[in-house]
Amino acid sequence: MKLKAAAEIGINATHMRLPKTATEEEILHSITEVNENSSVHGLIVQLPLDSIHKIDTEKVTNAVAPEKDVDGLTSINAGKLSRGDLGDCFIPCTPNGCMELIKQTDILVVGIGKAEMVKGEWIKKGAVVIDCGINHIPGLTITLNVCVQNTVLSAKRFLETHQPGKWNISYTKLNLQKPVPSDIVISRSCVPKPVDRLAKEVGLLSDEVELYGKTKAKVQLNIVKRLQAQPDGKYVVVTGITPTPLGEGKSTTTIGLVQALGAHMKLNVFACVRQPSQGPTFGIKGGAAGGGYSQVIPMEEFNLHLTGDIHAITAANNLVAAAIDARMFHESTQSDKALYNRLVPLSGGQRKFSPIQLNRLKKLGIEKTDPSALTEEEITRFARLDMDPSSVTWQRVLDTNDRFLRKITIGQSPTEKGYTREAQFDITVASEIMAVLALTSSLEDMRQRLAKMVVATSRNGEPITTEDLGVSGALTVLMKDAIKPNLMQTLEGTPVFVHAGPFANIAHGNSSILADKIALKLVGPEGFVVTEAGFGADIGMEKFFNIKCRYSGLRPHVVVLVATVRALKMHGGGPTVTAGMPLPKEYVEENLELLENGCSNMRKQIENAKHFGVPVVVAVNGFKTDTEAELDLVCRMAKAAGAFDAVRCSHWAEGGAGAVALGQAVQRASEAPSNFKFLYDLELPIADKIRIIAQKIYGADDIELLPEAQHKVELYTKQGFGGLPICMAKTHLSLSHEADKKGVPTGFILPIRDIRASVGAGFLFPLVGTMPTIPGLPTRPCFYDIDLDPETEQVNGLF
Amino acid sequence: MKLKAAAEIGINATHMRLPKTATEEEILHSITEVNENSSVHGLIVQLPLDSIHKIDTEKVTNAVAPEKDVDGLTSINAGKLSRGDLGDCFIPCTPNGCMELIKQTDILVVGIGKAEMVKGEWIKKGAVVIDCGINHIPGLTITLNVCVQNTVLSAKRFLETHQPGKWNISYTKLNLQKPVPSDIVISRSCVPKPVDRLAKEVGLLSDEVELYGKTKAKVQLNIVKRLQAQPDGKYVVVTGITPTPLGEGKSTTTIGLVQALGAHMKLNVFACVRQPSQGPTFGIKGGAAGGGYSQVIPMEEFNLHLTGDIHAITAANNLVAAAIDARMFHESTQSDKALYNRLVPLSGGQRKFSPIQLNRLKKLGIEKTDPSALTEEEITRFARLDMDPSSVTWQRVLDTNDRFLRKITIGQSPTEKGYTREAQFDITVASEIMAVLALTSSLEDMRQRLAKMVVATSRNGEPITTEDLGVSGALTVLMKDAIKPNLMQTLEGTPVFVHAGPFANIAHGNSSILADKIALKLVGPEGFVVTEAGFGADIGMEKFFNIKCRYSGLRPHVVVLVATVRALKMHGGGPTVTAGMPLPKEYVEENLELLENGCSNMRKQIENAKHFGVPVVVAVNGFKTDTEAELDLVCRMAKAAGAFDAVRCSHWAEGGAGAVALGQAVQRASEAPSNFKFLYDLELPIADKIRIIAQKIYGADDIELLPEAQHKVELYTKQGFGGLPICMAKTHLSLSHEADKKGVPTGFILPIRDIRASVGAGFLFPLVGTMPTIPGLPTRPCFYDIDLDPETEQVNGLF
Repeated sequence: MKLKAAAEIGINATHMRLPKTATEEEILHSITEVNENSSVHGLIVQLPLDSIHKIDTEKVTNAVAPEKDVDGLTSINAGKLSRGDLGDCFIPCTPNGCMELIKQTDILVVGIGKAEMVKGEWIKKGAVVIDCGINHIPGLTITLNVCVQNTVLSAKRFLETHQPGKWNISYTKLNLQKPVPSDIVISRSCVPKPVDRLAKEVGLLSDEVELYGKTKAKVQLNIVKRLQAQPDGKYVVVTGITPTPLGEGKSTTTIGLVQALGAHMKLNVFACVRQPSQGPTFGIKGGAAGGGYSQVIPMEEFNLHLTGDIHAITAANNLVAAAIDARMFHESTQSDKALYNRLVPLSGGQRKFSPIQLNRLKKLGIEKTDPSALTEEEITRFARLDMDPSSVTWQRVLDTNDRFLRKITIGQSPTEKGYTREAQFDITVASEIMAVLALTSSLEDMRQRLAKMVVATSRNGEPITTEDLGVSGALTVLMKDAIKPNLMQTLEGTPVFVHAGPFANIAHGNSSILADKIALKLVGPEGFVVTEAGFGADIGMEKFFNIKCRYSGLRPHVVVLVATVRALKMHGGGPTVTAGMPLPKEYVEENLELLENGCSNMRKQIENAKHFGVPVVVAVNGFKTDTEAELDLVCRMAKAAGAFDAVRCSHWAEGGAGAVALGQAVQRASEAPSNFKFLYDLELPIADKIRIIAQKIYGADDIELLPEAQHKVELYTKQGFGGLPICMAKTHLSLSHEADKKGVPTGFILPIRDIRASVGAGFLFPLVGTMPTIPGLPTRPCFYDIDLDPETEQVNGLF
Repeated sequence: MKLKAAAEIGINATHMRLPKTATEEEILHSITEVNENSSVHGLIVQLPLDSIHKIDTEKVTNAVAPEKDVDGLTSINAGKLSRGDLGDCFIPCTPNGCMELIKQTDILVVGIGKAEMVKGEWIKKGAVVIDCGINHIPGLTITLNVCVQNTVLSAKRFLETHQPGKWNISYTKLNLQKPVPSDIVISRSCVPKPVDRLAKEVGLLSDEVELYGKTKAKVQLNIVKRLQAQPDGKYVVVTGITPTPLGEGKSTTTIGLVQALGAHMKLNVFACVRQPSQGPTFGIKGGAAGGGYSQVIPMEEFNLHLTGDIHAITAANNLVAAAIDARMFHESTQSDKALYNRLVPLSGGQRKFSPIQLNRLKKLGIEKTDPSALTEEEITRFARLDMDPSSVTWQRVLDTNDRFLRKITIGQSPTEKGYTREAQFDITVASEIMAVLALTSSLEDMRQRLAKMVVATSRNGEPITTEDLGVSGALTVLMKDAIKPNLMQTLEGTPVFVHAGPFANIAHGNSSILADKIALKLVGPEGFVVTEAGFGADIGMEKFFNIKCRYSGLRPHVVVLVATVRALKMHGGGPTVTAGMPLPKEYVEENLELLENGCSNMRKQIENAKHFGVPVVVAVNGFKTDTEAELDLVCRMAKAAGAFDAVRCSHWAEGGAGAVALGQAVQRASEAPSNFKFLYDLELPIADKIRIIAQKIYGADDIELLPEAQHKVELYTKQGFGGLPICMAKTHLSLSHEADKKGVPTGFILPIRDIRASVGAGFLFPLVGTMPTIPGLPTRPCFYDIDLDPETEQVNGLF
């Protein structure tokens, strides 16, 4: 009868029998296996009568995962009371009954799981309904019925939790203070939920989650497979108008919006944001975890090491750099034959190519696998990469604001025999490996992208890759954990994926595709995933669509365009805004004229979003100096410019409650018809793709390819990289290439100084001007204020 | 009656009452608080009748930690069956009884904890014995009695688990193969226990452990306080004779020994080992996790990022470096006044010193706290560190084998205005911060050591510290997680702390004091902690005693000296042993003469250990080419030389079973009288301390201070660093300073080229010859073989 109930929801019963001679270790091993199998929902352990002499029964019963312990007893605490040393059985079972049972069975581990489980490993051991063989023992029927019923309940609960549908999630209540305290004070005042609880709330199985302390966790990629049939949620990208150097609150709006959609509108929602660079945290930069009452917490974990992904990139990037210079050095000092003998060394009397070397042979068109079969010419081609030192585009990286590493000379120790060259360090997030991490879709895909990265050109014009260097497998090993998205939470207890943070100029400035994809499955079709694109809509959003969405295949439903009265006044002709200096009075007093003029920039950015066929909701991020009339004007102008809606928000001061109107507008917009399209075809010539972006998005009259850029167009086309999408490296402070041209500049020709290639990540990046790739420290870096209280272990002074 | 039982073991009862209007969040919060309080052993949650309408009762009952759920039911699974929506109460309680109870109580969270708990926060809420007020409800007496009895049991179990005494630990059975497979194959063939289970087995509380995935965890330092009254276990250091360049298996012996003491002799035992540098993993180095059937697992986690401690050191070290160069640059380009105004900026109309700046003022003897009160001379002294660029001793670091960074010129970008200088990168483990991590005893102590690190000398001869740079607090913040020891396990399931890995030449080459201290408490007085000192006994062991034990205050019980027939033959005059080349026949055939000659080195190293008054057990690490006669000879010679015992081991091929004789000898030796003493007094002049080590340990006739060393002796004495212990930077391949002098060299003068100071870590390091501080990559680095299988996610090719 009970088993019928089990069958109704797709549950089958089976048992697993261990020999009577099984050791404690073997029993524990079996229990651990069942505990970790997410398709098993019930487990009972029966131990033989004499087991107490050879095994620790308490340890065995304690090993059963509580959620799978279906005999109605907490084995941990009730065991000793009602069961003495007889093991783990239900109260109605009399001591005699138990003894009967124990005499008849060997060591019996009974698992009741879903049909899938039965199809797997367990069935080989014989699937038997649970009451076979033990049902007839007096006093045990109830026990077993209860167990089955419990298993049915446990499985139902499991299915409810892990099916599409509203999450069973608890939100954290904010205790709003005025004036709004500092970010770190707010962050610390909120106790984050244990991250394992959060993971469970959003439908992650315990075996899909790797905890990193109590507030951070990594999510394994196998979830992609488990949820592949699940429909995606709605996909929202947050971008902004052309900002002041102070930033206009895109991150804060992203977090405020998810707090509103989740804690206030009770929808499933995930934020997917970038991991910030740690270096600038100690320089002059503010936090990247949002701000005020819209933050990712704990903010010090978010802003510092997190789970080590950026450190892994530093290690991987610099292994490539060391391999390049060491290889050039060894090639300079050895004959072809000596090189070959070292590259394919004698081991146990024979030479053997490693798989990575076989890949290089394949690339060279040498179809041989026996090292002794290569001709001299083939040996030379295989062993000598012949990189031109002046062509090396791969730089070393550090996650530190170290200006003295912007240009250096390396190799000056006598051990390097005079092979010096000029080189540079970039900040780690500028590494191509960071862009690879952000754009990859699987471990296999990452392996391929890491292998395709071009680091230099050989003297005869061939691109040299990390695979040629033999280092691609090691890079994948170094990045094996970094590829798993990091789970954290907002102040109001909604989930956040923090994953990848590529530069927004020389790279595409968007968080990872993998995090977005997993989040879209977890929220389900009625839920929302909100992600943020770096810089203004002309840069981050354009790249989000043309690069990230192209590689992910995901189609966005809504663009949220963040605007501020401050930035719009600047575009309307207001005085210069400088970080660290007091704001001129135009920005703190009502000035509708400046504001109305400046709305041109917002209008252009709305138009930019509409080029892609996606509805735009303008979020007017209100400051306390903004007047009603100003805020109204912006909303009116936005709607007139074709925004789906425009709403005022106060999430910085009020958390999600301050962004409910925005959340409602986003929800409505997500149901509006959209007609997503890319801006350009990949097949177009490189120059044409650049021109389309310059003209349609920036408003340029045309582009001008300077000689180096022209040369690169030819080189990349010849090398077969012409079909890659374009990732413009342009200032974010103007729609044009000149940072001081505000509003909507017109009548300009966009100069393209040079073009670089991130072949592994998969884009070409034209350089419009010079891009600083490692920041410096000011005279008084903010590290002066940062300290740890050794008593409380609290971080102080972080923003 | 039952309460009496509770009182007998020091338990008191109390309750915590929340208002009927309590929200779900508030209830969950209270439960979480109780769950995390390790002095509470029982918890029952009663919810009011109408609670189902406003709270999710299932979520609330599920929130109770299973080991504290003392009402005899697994709330998770039994709830729905017997209790419906009435909340969480015991079966004998009739529905009517429960309703009665619920009518009378508000929301009642009952916690039954130890007396300590009652004294704390809870008593403020009113301590009441549990049966007051509810005892008279029909049908409930049993429930409450059972609950109290369960709590008594739970508390007893807790006390048993967390008191000195034999751990309740399960060992992992090895499945020995012949021939012995590669290290990574063996490592992968063993399923590690979930690390949270291991943590529990060795007496760690769940709130003291931070998981990092399923196989690694960090242990919080508050455990030091909890266990302070607990007596320490026995302390064993593993060292070796002067090795061949291939190494003689100290790490393997360390792990084999703990596997023997634990899995075979059933004693509580911890291994405390160094975290290896990741860079060399991709160069030519073998694994550092032991080898064969004596390994720390998973070895790929051990050898790669681990929990990010080394990455944290890279970040911290390079922040100091960036701060030094940026500061010299800003001082070069600004007037004193401008510097001061930037260092102590106007904020909200006033200037304020940060606490770190107040520390600098104090050091300068300026007793002012108001920035406007400083005289011009004081402003200059405060603002201008005036570092002499040629005096900068702080180097940048990377955990990469990058030979081209051995000597570089930095600051060549035009933005640095010509302020170039020569600099270098070291490998991260050579950073002084690594030595600080290894020698620190608490967060507060680490903060102080990090602040004391001297990075340069000012033009007038003052040592400039990280505190002067204002960066000491930020360093502490960057290192706040690295200070927590990392828990892993051996192949046989015994616990291992992996923590800190300072260089064994320019630093002291020993794992952390904190890990040893915590492990000594956890094993208890009958247990063992085995740690390893880098290089041979003349270096690693000497530093272990004179530096590590001096700072820790710990007194070792036994020295294990690892010897191999191979190395002894080399000392006896055998041909040169070179890594990567086949061994000459002397090493693979019996040769008792060479062996007997070479035993001189072992004799000297035994004598070295006995200088410190500690009994020595010689472990003869057997290779398959060693003959019976050879192994016997070594044991005989060792005993004749004064070893407490000498035994043969085969743990590489057999795991702990191959080191049981060693374990027994160590256990006996630990009970022998010992009379530990340091080799020198700190008060002696620097040169005398160096001379004592050179003469007594190395067998030198005398030392010779070369001019730079002589200069440093004077400088450090003047600067007040003369009282630091000495950390010799000498080759490990000979007792002398010349690597090719094997056996026991005599009649030599030890030349001291230079002396450096690690003031924060707390030692002076005399340089005997040049020490390479960053390795290079060979022509065919081992990364050629390393790859990840994208399907199984297995790491291949790692050794």
